[in-house]
Amino acid sequence: MTPMDHALEQARAAAALGEIPVGAVITDASGAIIATGHNRTEEQQNPAAHAEFIALQAATAARGQKYLSDCTLTVTLEPCALCAGAIAAFRVQKLVFGAYDPKSGAVEHGPRVFSHATTHHKPEVIGGVRDSDCSALLAAFFADLRNA
Amino acid sequence: MTPMDHALEQARAAAALGEIPVGAVITDASGAIIATGHNRTEEQQNPAAHAEFIALQAATAARGQKYLSDCTLTVTLEPCALCAGAIAAFRVQKLVFGAYDPKSGAVEHGPRVFSHATTHHKPEVIGGVRDSDCSALLAAFFADLRNA
Repeated sequence: MTPMDHALEQARAAAALGEIPVGAVITDASGAIIATGHNRTEEQQNPAAHAEFIALQAATAARGQKYLSDCTLTVTLEPCALCAGAIAAFRVQKLVFGAYDPKSGAVEHGPRVFSHATTHHKPEVIGGVRDSDCSALLAAFFADLRNA
Repeated sequence: MTPMDHALEQARAAAALGEIPVGAVITDASGAIIATGHNRTEEQQNPAAHAEFIALQAATAARGQKYLSDCTLTVTLEPCALCAGAIAAFRVQKLVFGAYDPKSGAVEHGPRVFSHATTHHKPEVIGGVRDSDCSALLAAFFADLRNA
C-alpha cells in the first residue's frame, strides 16, 4: 500500500463515522508511517480537528520533537489555510495531496499559503495524486447527505 | 482592564517562561473573558501552540460548542496563516490584534487569509491596537536573546 492508499483508508474511516471523508498519513524518510489522522470535527466538536492537523500533532508527539523536516504528509484533499499554515509551522518536507479543493483549498487556491515570503517554510508540493479516488469519496459522502 | 490589557499580561507571562511574548484573550458578547492563551511552542515542543490557537481550543472546550460566532479574539500580534485559518474555522466574530507582523503575518500581509472567497468566514478585523506596547514586548524579548 502506498501512503495515499493509507490516507484513503483513513478518509473511509472518517466517512463511516459521519465525518467529511478526509484522511492523512505522515511518513518518514524511510517511508515508515509515523502518524495518521482523519477528520474528527463532528466527534470532537472542534473545527480544527482536520485530518492533517491531527496527524501533525500525533507525529510530533510520537517523536517528541518539534519539527518534521524529514517527513512527507499525504492527504486526500488540498489543505485549507489552517492546515497549510500548520504544515509550514511543522516544517514538513513534502506535501502530497489528492483532490484539488477550489472551494476551500489554500495551497493552489485562495491564500496560496506557500506562495508568500512571509511563509518561512515551504514544502515540496505534489497535488492531484489519485484525484478521482479522493474526489469520489467526498462526492459520495455529500450525495448521501443530500439523500438522507 | 481592557481585553488588550489581558492579552498583554498573557504575553508577559510567555516572556517570563522564555517563550516569544504573544498573548491572546477571547471575550464573549458581554465582554466576559472565556479563554486566554499565550505562546507555548517551546514548553510543548509544538509549533502550533500559538497564543491564539490555544485560546481558541480552550474557548470551544469550555463552552462545549463548535463555533465562537459571538466572540472577539484579542491578540498582541497579527496572526500567522495557521491562526488566521483557525480564526476562520472557529467563525470568530471579531479579531483585534496589536502589532502588525510584516515578517510572518497572514492577515494584512502575505496570504491575507481573510481576503479570499475560499475563506468562508471572515471576522471583522481591527489591527494596530496598542501596537507600540505589543511591539515593545517583542523587541525587548529578542534584544535580551541577542545579548544572552
